Amino acid sequence: MVEASRNCSSLCRRVLKALLLCTGDMEHLVKYMQDKFIVLQLVVWCLRGVTRVTLANNPLSGAFILAALFWASPWQGLLGTVGVLVSTLTAVILGQDSTEISGGLHGFNGMLVSLLMGVLSSAQDWYWWLLLPVCFGSATCVFLYSGLSPVLDRWDLPASVFPFNIVIVLYLLCTGSDNPYFPHHPAMPPGVLDPNGTNLITIELVRSIPLGVGQIFACAAVGPSLLILGAILLYSPLLAFHALLGSAVGMLAGLSMAVHHDSLYSGLSGFNGALGCMAVGGLFFTFSWRTHLFAIASAFLSAYVDIALSNLLGTVGLPACSWAATLMVTLMLLLTGSLAAYRIPIGQVMAPEHNWHFRSQWEARSTAEREMTDVL
Amino acid sequence: MVEASRNCSSLCRRVLKALLLCTGDMEHLVKYMQDKFIVLQLVVWCLRGVTRVTLANNPLSGAFILAALFWASPWQGLLGTVGVLVSTLTAVILGQDSTEISGGLHGFNGMLVSLLMGVLSSAQDWYWWLLLPVCFGSATCVFLYSGLSPVLDRWDLPASVFPFNIVIVLYLLCTGSDNPYFPHHPAMPPGVLDPNGTNLITIELVRSIPLGVGQIFACAAVGPSLLILGAILLYSPLLAFHALLGSAVGMLAGLSMAVHHDSLYSGLSGFNGALGCMAVGGLFFTFSWRTHLFAIASAFLSAYVDIALSNLLGTVGLPACSWAATLMVTLMLLLTGSLAAYRIPIGQVMAPEHNWHFRSQWEARSTAEREMTDVL
Amino acid sequence: MVEASRNCSSLCRRVLKALLLCTGDMEHLVKYMQDKFIVLQLVVWCLRGVTRVTLANNPLSGAFILAALFWASPWQGLLGTVGVLVSTLTAVILGQDSTEISGGLHGFNGMLVSLLMGVLSSAQDWYWWLLLPVCFGSATCVFLYSGLSPVLDRWDLPASVFPFNIVIVLYLLCTGSDNPYFPHHPAMPPGVLDPNGTNLITIELVRSIPLGVGQIFACAAVGPSLLILGAILLYSPLLAFHALLGSAVGMLAGLSMAVHHDSLYSGLSGFNGALGCMAVGGLFFTFSWRTHLFAIASAFLSAYVDIALSNLLGTVGLPACSWAATLMVTLMLLLTGSLAAYRIPIGQVMAPEHNWHFRSQWEARSTAEREMTDVL
Repeated sequence: MVEASRNCSSLCRRVLKALLLCTGDMEHLVKYMQDKFIVLQLVVWCLRGVTRVTLANNPLSGAFILAALFWASPWQGLLGTVGVLVSTLTAVILGQDSTEISGGLHGFNGMLVSLLMGVLSSAQDWYWWLLLPVCFGSATCVFLYSGLSPVLDRWDLPASVFPFNIVIVLYLLCTGSDNPYFPHHPAMPPGVLDPNGTNLITIELVRSIPLGVGQIFACAAVGPSLLILGAILLYSPLLAFHALLGSAVGMLAGLSMAVHHDSLYSGLSGFNGALGCMAVGGLFFTFSWRTHLFAIASAFLSAYVDIALSNLLGTVGLPACSWAATLMVTLMLLLTGSLAAYRIPIGQVMAPEHNWHFRSQWEARSTAEREMTDVL
Repeated sequence: MVEASRNCSSLCRRVLKALLLCTGDMEHLVKYMQDKFIVLQLVVWCLRGVTRVTLANNPLSGAFILAALFWASPWQGLLGTVGVLVSTLTAVILGQDSTEISGGLHGFNGMLVSLLMGVLSSAQDWYWWLLLPVCFGSATCVFLYSGLSPVLDRWDLPASVFPFNIVIVLYLLCTGSDNPYFPHHPAMPPGVLDPNGTNLITIELVRSIPLGVGQIFACAAVGPSLLILGAILLYSPLLAFHALLGSAVGMLAGLSMAVHHDSLYSGLSGFNGALGCMAVGGLFFTFSWRTHLFAIASAFLSAYVDIALSNLLGTVGLPACSWAATLMVTLMLLLTGSLAAYRIPIGQVMAPEHNWHFRSQWEARSTAEREMTDVL
Repeated sequence: MVEASRNCSSLCRRVLKALLLCTGDMEHLVKYMQDKFIVLQLVVWCLRGVTRVTLANNPLSGAFILAALFWASPWQGLLGTVGVLVSTLTAVILGQDSTEISGGLHGFNGMLVSLLMGVLSSAQDWYWWLLLPVCFGSATCVFLYSGLSPVLDRWDLPASVFPFNIVIVLYLLCTGSDNPYFPHHPAMPPGVLDPNGTNLITIELVRSIPLGVGQIFACAAVGPSLLILGAILLYSPLLAFHALLGSAVGMLAGLSMAVHHDSLYSGLSGFNGALGCMAVGGLFFTFSWRTHLFAIASAFLSAYVDIALSNLLGTVGLPACSWAATLMVTLMLLLTGSLAAYRIPIGQVMAPEHNWHFRSQWEARSTAEREMTDVL
């Protein structure tokens, strides 16, 4: 009996240890993979790239997210896989920095471009010609990422999803809505409420919160969205919490501006808030109550700017993608004053929990040193 | 008799001295206020913020301008006051640089946003819900000011009214013209002359010149506009002269492009010219005949660019605000060649007269030193 | 007989030597002109400015191009001459850097603005009032060039044709399509194919390739376009080859997106590709097979981005000018990775053949030095 319980507790400890190994940035994997077969390495790079969309960096989470996408729609899953593969390979061919490639930094823009091309296409699923712009667009992302990096680097800013936003807007403009080869749905500005305004359905609003997280990957089904949320949770519970919080804030912002109910229910008005909240609350800044408040402010700003940009770009039939969150996060990173004190240099950004732990250690050390100096 | 005249002349001298103390940047007040009650300090910061809109920096001028706004419309005056207060307080809370705050640099954008929200709102005056976006928008200006500063600082450029222009455009896009809570008038592009073109009325054109100065504060009444002009005159006669000159230039530019007569008469085609002219003629560059010519060129460019941007933004129902002047002044500050020799570093910009005096002194000293070296 | 053949061969050698003196950047002329009459110097500066449009820098090519423009339309030729003159003189007056002026860097933007104003004007030829905006626009280009240079210089980027693109868009916006003084044709978005789609005419497509080179100067006639191509050939055969290649790539991109046949036949869909291809293939990067491939990629990207921007700007009646090529070349210059290794610093860019020769020499020397060090 004692032995059994001891076995069980030892098993539990092992499982917990294994689980802990799978959370965060999984840095131990980098060393482990170094001398493995190149295809296996490529798979890990791509999976890291998949999670980079949600600002995470964990190959296991990437596998879960990819599974969620295949679950929601196999065609979308395929497009996403092609996108992340093509852009990672393009980065290899263009001779980009190898740490950037192995960290998945060249994969996520290509993946998003492919997913959005698939979602916005008005052709049916399995329209194989779509792979042409998907490959071309994903490859172009690498050019833009590589070109924007030295510009933004002057202020220690990441290129983040600027390449995706630029490429998808250019693609939609280039093809137009009634292109004979690559037709797509024009975007509707979310501005005005339908005149015969139906009442709000509370259950739909609650459902829209996890959907807002799923919409980061252009996924509008509840099950897969929850799986994506689980994948973020695996990387960092703090990030997952801020994702939900930001999505809820985005929904509130949408309500206050009386946007279309469809836009609320589908989670489309939530995902910019989620991204804005995640980036500030723990990722690029060490977590504290102050950063938490800034994260909520960032979520509100991202959500309102998203409505504004959607109305603007909607006049020419374009979606606002994640322009709002990208611009707002860039703004937050530039902020001087009390927020800047919590800023983590871009090169050292890791999982929020790691950032927090690292910060505490660092602060403890600097306090100890100060005391030491005081004594002397 | 002799005594009386001596008394009178002594009185005159005292009045003049007191008046001189009230002109320019009133730097002596900074020291004087340091140990005063915080609320009184805040009032001075806000009043400085009010004048910053016209590139001035003088709390007494600020009081006059605020009085002018309350005279034109009490509701607008209230909105302006709320705007400058909220954004200054936000800057304090966000821990911005204290010299910036006490110089009023965090107040003027918030004030402009509030005034424009009020003017463009299609709800009646005293629609109290408007205070919600006014507070939110004013607070956002501080975020933008703080975020843009490090970017523009690389080229020693001021953030000036970029935050105001961005926030007001985003607000108008976000709400749209038929928003149930915050409706507003769509802007009309000034492009085309009405077909049954009535003749120009000279007296209206002359009136439009001071109105162009008033329109910097979105004020379209002659009396308050003259009071605002007087407030600028108190700060610096050179600045007031360039304001009138720029407004006249803007009117001429409007005439040459055959814009709507309404746009001419209301002073709307003049205020960008005024701002462009003020910034170059004496403020950011020491005054000389050459800078004076550049100021006129800047006024023309600002006015034409304003017409162009009004036509562009008018297609989506947005006003061009002061984008044109802001962009043109930024361009002028970047200019290399003969104008750059007169450039004053942003940190040392003060009242034009002070700049000029300082420059003369500095040049006299350097000439003296050169002669000294020649002798030795 | 022997004497005659010797004479002949000596003559041939002399002709060849004289011809070689006329190719490339004609640097020897700089020294030769130094003490000549100022008007003659100005002519050479302007002629260099004319070729700068095609990224070349050779006064003789400039004369050929100007001849081609006068051949195509005397009015356009006159406008171009006025533009290049006015902007070069403005640069002299504004005290711009003298090496920049003598290299023609302040002339080409003004020339392009003038040519485009002429082409887009819906008034007839010889409408003398047009000279007013032509002069004003050309002068404004110098302001923009001088203001953008310090910003772009941080990343060692050229201001290239950004000023032209900005000024022409502002001019068109400012006047609007039914301006009583300066009317112009609104641009048509090339997006959608006409429904009664006629078949493609192969001969027209072949003709469109040299026309794409001519369209860089807004010239839509075959003869003058060939003369312009000849002028580029005189400067650098490599540049001329890439111009044709880029134009062909642009046509292919246009075909793949099903743009209007008119847009294809007139060469309008080719000129951005040509510019994008020329800049990367040999000019800003030393020629090699890798840069050649990048040049083709750049041509494709420029062409697609041009279609996208044409569709976007077409919604407000504006042409996309050369925004696409300018942005894409800027992006290519920012690229890190394998292309950056071939990058030539902006200050040292000369004719592609010279760059190539210089690079080989430099590499040979550095190899020799390395060997030397190895031996020691």
